[in-house]
Amino acid sequence: MQEVKTALQANRDRHLQELQDLLAIPSVSALPEHKGDIEEAAAWMAESLKKIGMENVSIMPTEGHPVVYGDWLHAEGKPTVLIYGHYDVQPVDPLELWDTPPFEAEIRDGKIYARGATDDKGQVFMHIKAVETLMSTYGELPVNVKFCIEGEEEIGSPHLDTFAEKHQQLLASDVLVISDNPMLEKGQPTVCYGLRGICGLQIDVKGAKGDLHSGLYGGGVPNPLHALADLLASLHDDNGRISVEGFYDDVIPLTTDEKEAYDALGHDDEAVRADLDVPALYGEEGYTFLERTWVRPTLEINGMHGGFQGEGIKTVLPSAASAKISCRLVPDQDPDRILQLLEQHVEKQASDAVTIETTPFDKGKPFVTPFDHPAIQAAGDSLAKAYGKDTAYTRMGGTLPIAETFSDILDIPIVLMGFGLPTENFHAPNEHFHLENFDKGLEAICDYYSTLAEKLQ
Amino acid sequence: MQEVKTALQANRDRHLQELQDLLAIPSVSALPEHKGDIEEAAAWMAESLKKIGMENVSIMPTEGHPVVYGDWLHAEGKPTVLIYGHYDVQPVDPLELWDTPPFEAEIRDGKIYARGATDDKGQVFMHIKAVETLMSTYGELPVNVKFCIEGEEEIGSPHLDTFAEKHQQLLASDVLVISDNPMLEKGQPTVCYGLRGICGLQIDVKGAKGDLHSGLYGGGVPNPLHALADLLASLHDDNGRISVEGFYDDVIPLTTDEKEAYDALGHDDEAVRADLDVPALYGEEGYTFLERTWVRPTLEINGMHGGFQGEGIKTVLPSAASAKISCRLVPDQDPDRILQLLEQHVEKQASDAVTIETTPFDKGKPFVTPFDHPAIQAAGDSLAKAYGKDTAYTRMGGTLPIAETFSDILDIPIVLMGFGLPTENFHAPNEHFHLENFDKGLEAICDYYSTLAEKLQ
Repeated sequence: MQEVKTALQANRDRHLQELQDLLAIPSVSALPEHKGDIEEAAAWMAESLKKIGMENVSIMPTEGHPVVYGDWLHAEGKPTVLIYGHYDVQPVDPLELWDTPPFEAEIRDGKIYARGATDDKGQVFMHIKAVETLMSTYGELPVNVKFCIEGEEEIGSPHLDTFAEKHQQLLASDVLVISDNPMLEKGQPTVCYGLRGICGLQIDVKGAKGDLHSGLYGGGVPNPLHALADLLASLHDDNGRISVEGFYDDVIPLTTDEKEAYDALGHDDEAVRADLDVPALYGEEGYTFLERTWVRPTLEINGMHGGFQGEGIKTVLPSAASAKISCRLVPDQDPDRILQLLEQHVEKQASDAVTIETTPFDKGKPFVTPFDHPAIQAAGDSLAKAYGKDTAYTRMGGTLPIAETFSDILDIPIVLMGFGLPTENFHAPNEHFHLENFDKGLEAICDYYSTLAEKLQ
Repeated sequence: MQEVKTALQANRDRHLQELQDLLAIPSVSALPEHKGDIEEAAAWMAESLKKIGMENVSIMPTEGHPVVYGDWLHAEGKPTVLIYGHYDVQPVDPLELWDTPPFEAEIRDGKIYARGATDDKGQVFMHIKAVETLMSTYGELPVNVKFCIEGEEEIGSPHLDTFAEKHQQLLASDVLVISDNPMLEKGQPTVCYGLRGICGLQIDVKGAKGDLHSGLYGGGVPNPLHALADLLASLHDDNGRISVEGFYDDVIPLTTDEKEAYDALGHDDEAVRADLDVPALYGEEGYTFLERTWVRPTLEINGMHGGFQGEGIKTVLPSAASAKISCRLVPDQDPDRILQLLEQHVEKQASDAVTIETTPFDKGKPFVTPFDHPAIQAAGDSLAKAYGKDTAYTRMGGTLPIAETFSDILDIPIVLMGFGLPTENFHAPNEHFHLENFDKGLEAICDYYSTLAEKLQ
């Protein structure tokens, strides 16, 4: 690996210059006026894949922005790595809050500032440069690689499902590697091997045909706000556990190894409590904060409303109330099954004196790559080597729709090997990327691809 | 009484002409531009009291609009009746929905149309004309009378408390008669002998210092919406009874006579249910609809909100949630005591993981004149005679702040002897008053004042 390190150092300035060129393209996927820039970024990606020796490079159309594909499949008998990234970026508003123009990347204080620096141009660029470096150092790659770089991640990847289904053969691989997520904290190499899924439900409660005077009718007519409060209160027991029958049936319990790995992180619950300024943290009894947010499913009310919301009082007996709830799901919970259980619960618990309607929305499956999967452990080893520090193995509470897409359609293990930091202002003004992680990350990726073949066998 | 009936008939046209003159004065208390009209209406009232032989007639200043006072106190050894009414009216917007101009009273189809026709110029005018008729027929009155006609009822009578306290001596009487409320239904003579009181509480729940991502924090951080739903759900038990400790302690149970009187009304619960279009009525187990809304206290959520309320879903874990609740109180519940119990309940039930703030507002005491009080029964008898139909003895679910004022400060029984109908558009365009109730009401009032002295002894 010394040759690789030397090559990375020798080419660092050129790499950064190329990244600056890429960051100069305002490829905002959400805004139609940037359609030309999207095309330019896709072309830039294709060109750059060709330059490093990728074959079958193609700008593949979708119903929306194109996917850039390229592969190198000459490592006979070796595993194939699918590398996912995206070349589109978030809008830049409010522009006036940027210290330097978002599309004129500037390096200061060891960080590169530009829209897309960390999310995700900077990170997908590292994989291209890692492959380039391995290729130029050894004349070949230790594994087969396929690049799949899309242009619609920031608008929810609306066409990636269809694309992956249509090109299942082309994308077939042994492992999917994504660098589009943050490390646990600065200096802490991180492999994320699971994400929660999601499903949501809107509950609309209807009482009388119109708002009533609470003096004339109060006490004698069903109040939808009471009915809704009762219903929402019935969703959890006193120990923070979700009371919906069957909700936990398919939850895969945490393994001892995983629990030990989390405990080893020495997570500071009190620091979270103090930072959020709450009297106490709260959640399912018997689990730590990390377990509650990473590996346990949740049910949260995201919003509720009904009746008078202004200043003072209006003694109305309202005719309607609504709430939106969403669940974060963990393997092997199925969003459709959970929605069915929720609707059954609502039907069973709701007052007979009101009318209830439920509307499901926003579904995404959870995924987890087994903690002891060699692709996960190998990633952790390579990161530990590059950073000189034990890797944190994490799961995350959020949902990444593309992970579901790949996990579902391609049925392969996913390794989330992010190099961003939670503080790097992704989706906000002054987005930036720490070059420390650019450098160490490149080393780690090169090492990973070099050792993966051996470890996966 | 035949002379009285004859006199009423003989003077009917003049009475109606005078009422039309009164209704022509746009004495809207809420709008400063009508200050002159308010003064004109007060002067009209004073003049009209003088004309019928009242003494000590005076337009008495308050911090707001004046009170018109006048009395006749020569019925030695007889009881004194205080007659309350108001000469101010509601605004007329939206003007375009009136079929005829609001201040050009028009009689059509046996109804007189104008702002103030039923609320309350038309009804207080009836008392003036009843006294005039008795006086001109007999040369004296069978009871002592005091008129107290205010000009701020439609803006909440902000200065009546102070006025009543300051003039306690002047207003001291044996019974207060008010005609400013509706009859139970058309053709049904009604005496109302009790109104519920009120107190309100706003509950603000605070969680984390800001909204959080429900993926990253969901399951591990207190959600104020859950805390609020739990709290609101804890306010009632499964039988619709309020669970706040001590809430019912001071409630005076319904007497057998009252219960029989209500049952005799043959109230059609199913008609209410169908009219409101709810699957079922709902309330405290063991009580009828009338009992629930007239003589039982309530606790209703008037509004609640928190988190995302837009279309679709936003997977936020909100930082705050609020609710407004109000209670309708019955004798002898005290609003301050109930607020204290509510706050204790909130403190005891609320999750320790959130911060709760409560803000009390809107207090009013309930009142009830004993059902078997001779002033109530005499009113019922006079009404039954005039209408040829048994009187309905009712209580009402709403709150009348002036009733509290008089009941509290003057400590006298109150008789609500309303001649309006619920359908007469008070506070709305095309307000009107049925002349049937003008005629029968005048007879009833004359009879009431004639027989009261005897019955009160």
